[in-house]
Amino acid sequence: MGYKDTDVVTMAHGSGGESMQRLIGEMYANAFPKLQKDTDAACLPNIGEMAFTTDSFVVDPIFFPGGDIGSLAVHGTVNDIAMMGARPKFMSVAFIIEEGFPLKDLNTIVHSMADAAKKSNIQIVTGDTKVVGRGQGNGIYINTSAVGNLMIHDCNQPQYVDVGDKIIVSGDIGRHGMAIMSVRNGLELDPPILSDSAPLNAMVLSILNDDVYPSCMRDATRGGVAAVLNEIARTAQVHIRIEEEKVPVDENVRGLAEILGLDPLHIANEGRFVLFVKAEDALRTVKILQTFEGGEKAAIIGEVAGKNKNGLVTAKTLLGSEKPIHMPAGEILPRIC
Amino acid sequence: MGYKDTDVVTMAHGSGGESMQRLIGEMYANAFPKLQKDTDAACLPNIGEMAFTTDSFVVDPIFFPGGDIGSLAVHGTVNDIAMMGARPKFMSVAFIIEEGFPLKDLNTIVHSMADAAKKSNIQIVTGDTKVVGRGQGNGIYINTSAVGNLMIHDCNQPQYVDVGDKIIVSGDIGRHGMAIMSVRNGLELDPPILSDSAPLNAMVLSILNDDVYPSCMRDATRGGVAAVLNEIARTAQVHIRIEEEKVPVDENVRGLAEILGLDPLHIANEGRFVLFVKAEDALRTVKILQTFEGGEKAAIIGEVAGKNKNGLVTAKTLLGSEKPIHMPAGEILPRIC
Repeated sequence: MGYKDTDVVTMAHGSGGESMQRLIGEMYANAFPKLQKDTDAACLPNIGEMAFTTDSFVVDPIFFPGGDIGSLAVHGTVNDIAMMGARPKFMSVAFIIEEGFPLKDLNTIVHSMADAAKKSNIQIVTGDTKVVGRGQGNGIYINTSAVGNLMIHDCNQPQYVDVGDKIIVSGDIGRHGMAIMSVRNGLELDPPILSDSAPLNAMVLSILNDDVYPSCMRDATRGGVAAVLNEIARTAQVHIRIEEEKVPVDENVRGLAEILGLDPLHIANEGRFVLFVKAEDALRTVKILQTFEGGEKAAIIGEVAGKNKNGLVTAKTLLGSEKPIHMPAGEILPRIC
Repeated sequence: MGYKDTDVVTMAHGSGGESMQRLIGEMYANAFPKLQKDTDAACLPNIGEMAFTTDSFVVDPIFFPGGDIGSLAVHGTVNDIAMMGARPKFMSVAFIIEEGFPLKDLNTIVHSMADAAKKSNIQIVTGDTKVVGRGQGNGIYINTSAVGNLMIHDCNQPQYVDVGDKIIVSGDIGRHGMAIMSVRNGLELDPPILSDSAPLNAMVLSILNDDVYPSCMRDATRGGVAAVLNEIARTAQVHIRIEEEKVPVDENVRGLAEILGLDPLHIANEGRFVLFVKAEDALRTVKILQTFEGGEKAAIIGEVAGKNKNGLVTAKTLLGSEKPIHMPAGEILPRIC
């Protein structure tokens, strides 16, 4: 369907209200073939023990190199399910749209969600749309919630992390944060830094199918790899030691991070995760990850070096010294997801 | 915990960011005892076949007589599950908060959600918080999603509605819309009109337990009872005839609606539903509903009078004539939920 630049979302009122609701209803129905649109809730089959998650997405800008708020909203929630060792099954989508938002952009975002859902092998089954007045939003906010069936039990918790575990990142880090920052700062990089936004469930499934059961998995979103490592070190009461030179970072990402005075370990990813696995499983895990798009640079970046009551993360630097890697003090980059 | 008027939500950054996250985390953990706060998703037991729903709440004002955005967000989603003939089990909560929002108000809302969840017998198990800049929200928006286990199958659909079915409303109508409008218009009514916002799952459970299986149930939210009747008449291709004098409306609600030029049938409710039941079950159903708080005025308001290809809703007026009840043309009252 084609939309003119002047076709915008309006406060649903008067006769325009009903036709608008119809238009949006048709747009959703076209994009989401499994949407149960005649009822306010979807009927779902028994999926056994479940993971259940929710996330709102308020990323600014809503379009960025490598994705948009729609694909991000699908990937982010798919990944929260996948990190539980669960297979994403069914998703809800709720839009809060600011009056005046172009229908053309909404259509782009809706189809981007549909593509991402297909790629993630998850069905969008129910949804909701609210419209708020001008100056009470920022174009569009999206909430996605999802359920998935648990494939593993009693594992994948920080407290299962133990001394000797190897630490793996599933690909090169820092792309998503730097993609957002390059747009915000009006930098026209050539080639542009593309967000890593992607679903991680196929990687997780493949690892579990090969009988690798990570002690813990976590996607490295807000706060980056450094936040994940610090959270796990604290909960597991261990000392995590990584080697700086082993952390995979694209040259352009590293360059922009340096200009902005940021450490790539602190930058948000939306399609990368950190795994703690037994030493004997580490190489095999990396090889599996490397067969996936986005996993080409998967690498062992360190290990759990010992017990530590308060939790400690350190990095061996290129010069051979050892420095602490701190928890990022709050959000370095607001509105990243 | 006490909050000063000057304690507000800030963009989570700098060291204030981390302490803010802690504060909010503690507030949530205190209010929601079943929150699984160490992971981004909750692990849930097998609940069999499910209903799954999502809704965002953008009501303005966020505090109103008889409730607030928090209780409304719980009741609204509980009711979407209940209307499927399902028992609400687990809920997610996602906040989008505008920078500068008072922590005191957030705390009130969070505890209002906790109370509503307890009353609705649903567990809040997972959540998310995003903060947006000033002028990019309206204080607070809340998304709730939920799953519940289906108690009935292959019924409760508009297409099961048949000629002869009696139509019941579960209580007096129009309170929620008029409660919101009275605040918006600065009317200080004495006594105030209280919103009907309430969970409907106990009523539904009680009816099913008494072996009444409605052809269709639907909560009468945006667009009111008129919208529900028109949607069902269209889908079921029937003529629905109601009797105006049988529709229960509180005198104060009727008075304010008249002043505003609104028909109570078009006004949103957040704790009232419409049921289509077999004629022989109708009186029994009404009697069950009347035992509940909010159900005192439950009544049979009409019946399915015959087949009609395009769907038709009419009302016998007090004067004995018959008039059409139209689908509300869009939202009469925006930001009602």
